[in-house]
Amino acid sequence: MDSDFGVPRELSHLQKLRSQYQPELPPCLQGKSVRVEFSDATASTDPSGAHTISRSFPHTYGQPLAHFLRASAKVPDAQIISEHPAVRVGVVFCGRQSPGGHNVIWGLHNALKTHNTSSTLLGFLGGSEGLFAQKTLEITDEILATYKNQGGYDLLGRTKDQIRTTEQVTAALSTCKALKLDSLVIIGGVTSNTDAAQLAETFAEAKCPTKVVGVPVTLNGDLKNQFVEANVGFDTICKVNSQLISNVCTDALSAEKYYYFIRLMGRKASHVALECTLQSHPNMVILGEEVAAEKLTLFDLTKQLCDAVQTRAEQDKYHGVILLPEGLIESIPEVYALLQEIHGLLREGHSVDNISSKLSPWASALFEFLPLFIRKQLLLHPESDDSAQLSQIETEKLLAHLVEEEMNKRLKEGTYKGKKFNAICHFFGYQARGSLPSKFDCDYAYVLGHIAYHVLAAGLNGYLATVTNLKNPLNKWRCGAAPITAMMTVKRYGSGPGGAFSGKPAVHPATVDLKGKSYELLTQNAAKFLLEDIYRNPGPLQFDGPGADAKAVTLCVEDQDYMGRIKELEVYLDKVRTIVKPGCSQDVLKAALSAMAAVTNILSMVSSPANSGV
Amino acid sequence: MDSDFGVPRELSHLQKLRSQYQPELPPCLQGKSVRVEFSDATASTDPSGAHTISRSFPHTYGQPLAHFLRASAKVPDAQIISEHPAVRVGVVFCGRQSPGGHNVIWGLHNALKTHNTSSTLLGFLGGSEGLFAQKTLEITDEILATYKNQGGYDLLGRTKDQIRTTEQVTAALSTCKALKLDSLVIIGGVTSNTDAAQLAETFAEAKCPTKVVGVPVTLNGDLKNQFVEANVGFDTICKVNSQLISNVCTDALSAEKYYYFIRLMGRKASHVALECTLQSHPNMVILGEEVAAEKLTLFDLTKQLCDAVQTRAEQDKYHGVILLPEGLIESIPEVYALLQEIHGLLREGHSVDNISSKLSPWASALFEFLPLFIRKQLLLHPESDDSAQLSQIETEKLLAHLVEEEMNKRLKEGTYKGKKFNAICHFFGYQARGSLPSKFDCDYAYVLGHIAYHVLAAGLNGYLATVTNLKNPLNKWRCGAAPITAMMTVKRYGSGPGGAFSGKPAVHPATVDLKGKSYELLTQNAAKFLLEDIYRNPGPLQFDGPGADAKAVTLCVEDQDYMGRIKELEVYLDKVRTIVKPGCSQDVLKAALSAMAAVTNILSMVSSPANSGV
Repeated sequence: MDSDFGVPRELSHLQKLRSQYQPELPPCLQGKSVRVEFSDATASTDPSGAHTISRSFPHTYGQPLAHFLRASAKVPDAQIISEHPAVRVGVVFCGRQSPGGHNVIWGLHNALKTHNTSSTLLGFLGGSEGLFAQKTLEITDEILATYKNQGGYDLLGRTKDQIRTTEQVTAALSTCKALKLDSLVIIGGVTSNTDAAQLAETFAEAKCPTKVVGVPVTLNGDLKNQFVEANVGFDTICKVNSQLISNVCTDALSAEKYYYFIRLMGRKASHVALECTLQSHPNMVILGEEVAAEKLTLFDLTKQLCDAVQTRAEQDKYHGVILLPEGLIESIPEVYALLQEIHGLLREGHSVDNISSKLSPWASALFEFLPLFIRKQLLLHPESDDSAQLSQIETEKLLAHLVEEEMNKRLKEGTYKGKKFNAICHFFGYQARGSLPSKFDCDYAYVLGHIAYHVLAAGLNGYLATVTNLKNPLNKWRCGAAPITAMMTVKRYGSGPGGAFSGKPAVHPATVDLKGKSYELLTQNAAKFLLEDIYRNPGPLQFDGPGADAKAVTLCVEDQDYMGRIKELEVYLDKVRTIVKPGCSQDVLKAALSAMAAVTNILSMVSSPANSGV
Repeated sequence: MDSDFGVPRELSHLQKLRSQYQPELPPCLQGKSVRVEFSDATASTDPSGAHTISRSFPHTYGQPLAHFLRASAKVPDAQIISEHPAVRVGVVFCGRQSPGGHNVIWGLHNALKTHNTSSTLLGFLGGSEGLFAQKTLEITDEILATYKNQGGYDLLGRTKDQIRTTEQVTAALSTCKALKLDSLVIIGGVTSNTDAAQLAETFAEAKCPTKVVGVPVTLNGDLKNQFVEANVGFDTICKVNSQLISNVCTDALSAEKYYYFIRLMGRKASHVALECTLQSHPNMVILGEEVAAEKLTLFDLTKQLCDAVQTRAEQDKYHGVILLPEGLIESIPEVYALLQEIHGLLREGHSVDNISSKLSPWASALFEFLPLFIRKQLLLHPESDDSAQLSQIETEKLLAHLVEEEMNKRLKEGTYKGKKFNAICHFFGYQARGSLPSKFDCDYAYVLGHIAYHVLAAGLNGYLATVTNLKNPLNKWRCGAAPITAMMTVKRYGSGPGGAFSGKPAVHPATVDLKGKSYELLTQNAAKFLLEDIYRNPGPLQFDGPGADAKAVTLCVEDQDYMGRIKELEVYLDKVRTIVKPGCSQDVLKAALSAMAAVTNILSMVSSPANSGV
């Protein structure tokens, strides 16, 4: 089967034309030389975890941010990289496929060959399994021809998504040594990039010269932090899902007899569900983060949904569309606790058949209350990251079932007088994941591929390639790289003094920020969405003409650009230095001291652990 | 709720631009005057049923075909319609919503107002229920503004899809009389157009002046016959489904661990499944028509699928994509017989709970063999057309379940040595049905709307608006109308001489022609599709640039244009008449007689009932 990888294939008319699309590069990456500027050393966003992280990553913690600038940029301390020896680079797909992945490889290949035609790019076949087994395919322009701007991961395939056990890390190390790789590029999400950081540390410790570079590619959109604004694939997934959700909304409004419960692939965090809601305006969305914050039980959720159905029925509306994130089930407190018990028993080796008899009384009561199909799904073995098999647990069906029971009860009791409640359930994910990537994802992935090369050229290890200011046109994009360790946090489990136990440092999935602008936009419109059916149809993904350049609503609203602001701050600091240099008047110096004392006071207060909210 | 119909709404950027798209008209419909040419009287395609049909439709059977031509066309016997008194027209959506429906109304409105600004178009609210209850909305340009080129039926809504019982027909008659309608336009599929024909006959009998016109709009694509090449909505549905199927194919190839079983909405006939297969090249498709023709049992189908899985496993392939038509279950002989028994018992008033005990021994055995979820679904009450609730019966899950059991059995027995079989099931339909219509469907529907007006202007009753030569560019399209009774057939049930019993004449859903060119194209490629993973991704529906003008593969391959050939034949007959007119030589006359004798001989033979194959 391996012989099937990278083979040219028949493309449809549209695919052919897409394969001829050439993404541009931001000005800073054009030309043969690139300037790298380093900021101060990075700290972790989790001050209380900083010590743990620095102990776990002695070689790779505390490295500076890197910014890539035009060779002509006038920055005094920047280093111009103009020598480009031939290098050998390996690249591997890790984790769930995400539209745009192929373009990272194309961008990387293009950057390698532009700077030295003798450089070599090796793709590992079948994901991390190929990395361990040293199965490679040399990437060439011919091989890329029918994969440029195309969806899926089928150029190289993927299998398991972790590089974590000692055997796995050792195998990866052997491969990099055997193949004499100067760099290993890991394409993936939070888990894979945590692994990348660990690999970088191990390689540094073992004095292996291979530099590890991560690239943020995950449809979940949950590899998000001050350095990373968006992930490759998220834009496409949200556009394709929004197209389908809108179609279902139109359908609901035409038939006027069904409630559609749609669960959206994207793991536990609700980024995909939030973005799709803002694009297509369904009647309701239940965000896992809201459920967790308000500790809503299954009973609360059912009641909330039934009340909504009833309010709409009073306006003679018997249809609606409700979105759920894939992993909602893990955000519901009592179900999460039940899952923890089940997983504990599974780990102890109990067979699935007698787990229900081993549960604690309350867990057993909840378990018996649930319909049979959900019980079976909750008993599935947990995934490698200890989460439940979220794609397999049909929370949409569970909620639809509970709402139907409750509405029938209300109907019987006479508290509800409308028509019978009818639900149709969907899980959208597989049908979006393999899509042709949007123009945004094609461009973003291609640029990240280029950056991955420059990270290597700058000799950096354990970094993630980053692009910020993404909401603006491509020629305004800022390219850089950040140490992955700076994105890590340490989770604490248990409670009470001394009883707390710290997890391993890791990049954790970002959750939807309930104080953020995107969520605010949702809450402002929630009542209108619920009652007024102001469905919006962004239409199918377009590559030409209107809509082709649309960007994610959350990306545009959130206005992150942390990296840009860091640079802006540095300009201010430099200005102060220039104005207040030795020789300036006593008054200027006094003013500067008093002003800076005030600034540092405020900042110390704001950034004390009590305010960190981690 | 009625107050929500026709309200302007917020459109997305792409929707707005689509709402400004103006379909063109074929040359014959441009200008203020249109010429109508009538062919000979039509017969039914079902010679043995002709008598029954003519008896049931004494007023509307045997009417001629109508062709609409440019006013300047030189056709001797054609009638120019240049007077256009103000008329009142009603229009109603019947049955499942289908993308493009709104454009029929727009085209009709535009034609009415172009020919007389005093004409009125009334839309019935909530489908046939609105027709019975005289609930109308006057269609204006303002109301249409945000519905032009948009999906769904939400401008007017729809409810039940039949106009059949005496009460329903009487209510429709009263409405048409009360509202003084000159014409009633029915937008729908096979069932609705059968109802339209019945209504036309009843109106003629009752001397009601309202002319009934049908328009072929159904995503199933099964209102197909010598007069009708395609249905509005089919093109869009197949494109959206093919996009999703292709994405799933890419996904299968990237993850390499799942078999996807995808059931496609489209009722019992397999047109949607066939078209999507030709667009996206999945590994397998099971057509209901093949299953029925070869009398394949559930056991046969399972074996066929397992053998395919095993052959692929021998090539180290553990993924695949398999398509099924929505109503496959009714094509499997033993399940169909079981359904007939169940429906019979339901009609006799037996409660769902004790039906299984009333089944005949063999039916009971099959029933008990089936998994619980399917049993529940088979017990659902049949639909108004006596078919099972096909959308609710998850045949994809049944087959995936049976294949999994059989593969596990083979694994145990050692006859299969590959990896464990894993399936993921989908039902695609709702997420495509509400889509923005493709350019083809926008154009086709708009032109049909115009034709519906000209049918009325020509004073015709019981006709279906038709466009042929659709595979060619719009300026080559041929516009016409055909009596719906000419599309009817009479089904015979039971067997043995004298034991047969005839059904009512009706337009029956066309099945996929197993001798046709589209099916031939499939069989030629089936082996390659199965083994070589030559997945093809037509991409998302495009409105601009490459792909925007793509047409359905089956439409282009089938090369129907029956209406065009009828006209061509008439030209030949006229030529013979011209050459052999009184005064020609004895030799020419002799040659003509001998040649025509041969021709009529051949034709009599070919068209004898023994060859009709009905």
